[in-house]
Amino acid sequence: MKVDGRHYRTIWSERDDRVQVIDQTRLPHAFEVLTLEDLEAAAQAIERMVVRGAPLIGATAAYGLALGLRRDASDDGLEGGYARLLRTRPTAVNLRWALDALRSTVAPLPVDERAEAAWQHAARLCDEDVELCRRIGEAGLPLFRAAAEAKSSGEPLRVLTHCNAGWLATVDWGTALAPIYMAHDAGIPVEVWVDETRPRNQGAALTAWELGRHGVPHKVIADNAGGHLMQQGLVDLCIVGTDRTTANGDVCNKIGTYLKALAAKANGVPFYVALPYPTIDWQVERGRDIPIEERSSREVTHIWGRDEEGRIREVQVTPDGSAAANPAFDVTPAELVTAFITDRGVCPANRAGLAGLYRQAEAGQ
Amino acid sequence: MKVDGRHYRTIWSERDDRVQVIDQTRLPHAFEVLTLEDLEAAAQAIERMVVRGAPLIGATAAYGLALGLRRDASDDGLEGGYARLLRTRPTAVNLRWALDALRSTVAPLPVDERAEAAWQHAARLCDEDVELCRRIGEAGLPLFRAAAEAKSSGEPLRVLTHCNAGWLATVDWGTALAPIYMAHDAGIPVEVWVDETRPRNQGAALTAWELGRHGVPHKVIADNAGGHLMQQGLVDLCIVGTDRTTANGDVCNKIGTYLKALAAKANGVPFYVALPYPTIDWQVERGRDIPIEERSSREVTHIWGRDEEGRIREVQVTPDGSAAANPAFDVTPAELVTAFITDRGVCPANRAGLAGLYRQAEAGQ
Repeated sequence: MKVDGRHYRTIWSERDDRVQVIDQTRLPHAFEVLTLEDLEAAAQAIERMVVRGAPLIGATAAYGLALGLRRDASDDGLEGGYARLLRTRPTAVNLRWALDALRSTVAPLPVDERAEAAWQHAARLCDEDVELCRRIGEAGLPLFRAAAEAKSSGEPLRVLTHCNAGWLATVDWGTALAPIYMAHDAGIPVEVWVDETRPRNQGAALTAWELGRHGVPHKVIADNAGGHLMQQGLVDLCIVGTDRTTANGDVCNKIGTYLKALAAKANGVPFYVALPYPTIDWQVERGRDIPIEERSSREVTHIWGRDEEGRIREVQVTPDGSAAANPAFDVTPAELVTAFITDRGVCPANRAGLAGLYRQAEAGQ
Repeated sequence: MKVDGRHYRTIWSERDDRVQVIDQTRLPHAFEVLTLEDLEAAAQAIERMVVRGAPLIGATAAYGLALGLRRDASDDGLEGGYARLLRTRPTAVNLRWALDALRSTVAPLPVDERAEAAWQHAARLCDEDVELCRRIGEAGLPLFRAAAEAKSSGEPLRVLTHCNAGWLATVDWGTALAPIYMAHDAGIPVEVWVDETRPRNQGAALTAWELGRHGVPHKVIADNAGGHLMQQGLVDLCIVGTDRTTANGDVCNKIGTYLKALAAKANGVPFYVALPYPTIDWQVERGRDIPIEERSSREVTHIWGRDEEGRIREVQVTPDGSAAANPAFDVTPAELVTAFITDRGVCPANRAGLAGLYRQAEAGQ
């Protein structure tokens, strides 16, 4: 999407021996581009969370392995690079998936063809991710248009979102934000309520930044505020992303998603989940079977931001000696979800809805 | 309650020409006591939020006016002091109520008796507030005891609370925290989930501090986490305070209370509201008739805490140019409230329940 008028992806390459990424550790306070010139730089970019978001991690790993093969395309080079990249984020499913796919593509090739093939593969992976997100945007656009047309003229469509499911988490467009960008670009007046998304503040830091840079009107709110705004009729629809969706349509997403879904249901506000097919987990039947990651309590007790002198620093908000708990995700039961907006269109949030769109995938697994 | 073994109130006097308060602007990072020696010092303590919480503001104002009368007990002194204190927090209902009561008590008296009468009145006001909160604690204790007894032996009773409705907001005990302290002191094993309570972090800063100093086990959580914890069966009951309760039992309280009430209802978790009688507003029929205060957006965009060098400072979490919205309260409909725990006992959260306990008050207004 656009950053102050110029189009960017989160990862791109202008020459075939280096790749560039936006340094997300500096956002929202500085926009800086980092050049990754070798596999180790790509691995560290993933580890340091210079890049984050499952699709972007996968893309960076693929480019990283391709860079590694430019130096050493032997079987040892391939396996060593694969192992180095895989251990950057041990729980990231997309990371393994991207690395496995790249390895299967290049391993059968003669050594002198591997680097170029890997490079093409990584580029294609990025293009495919962009296309997936663009399709989610296209699938959601008619829903947004209809909701906007149902409003009095001049009133913006008010959309609430949680966490960052925007282009910064993918290669471009994002998932939940794709229909928002598409509606905005189509001239539909949209205004976004951006949940701060404690404890890591991805909404306040990343979603607010990318909406602002693209020119989409928005307001940051405390995570506590959404229920009240819905009661007051100030939210026309909610849209969020998903980390994992079970076969019955339960949605595992950033902690706090469930509370917004409850409020949406109680107030008759449509609650959409943007769902790219790789997040469907056909192996897991119900959301309650998903183990929830407990993250560091320091994410709750300390907050980072920019101080009055422009320095990025961390402050402690809790008293010494007070412990914190930090479950990272929660499960929104399918019955609270109005519909899935997917790369293959819109469907009801249940087994039949998912199977209708992705029958092949389900049969195949 | 206790601070590391020693009993404190939030406001007290050891001599009749000065009053002491805990400096709440320094909490949770430092425990400091400020001495207020004259009316102006009391006024500034309220303005600077050295003291906060409706009952404590009222008590500080009463002592402040009493201090003023020690210097000038004339009608001019009385009216001037009243006016100075009243404008410290223009929207605080308790402030006006406390000042009006004190003025009516002393105005008919001879000038040379006013100061001492005012002092006695202020002291009585504090004692009455303590007694009110103590009764709330006593009313809630049997509910807590029964809930604890229903658990497997050794399992602590897990209580979730939002914002700070503890002794720091009152003179002692608090409202929502009174039954928690009483249960803890009675040997019932209690563990408290403390909602951080963005944007002002009263939970993370104040509730965590006072529970910790009194020795009550607790964990701070992001406001987003409570729904998930309830789904997982990790919350036995919720208890919150209230800023205003309407005649039909709707509860206006800190923003985010409503979301927790929805989650409690959805998961069969009892949701109690601790209700001291002055917060009942018989004049307002339903919660939706209460205007909700919109506070400064800076509370959302900036967060303060203690940096690595021990300095209290503010950091900005949002990008430059992103606006924020900051509604301070929300309304929890009566039907989501399991019961009110009041200074006159427990009652259903509806008109009949309130009238049953406070019939006189209702008839009188």
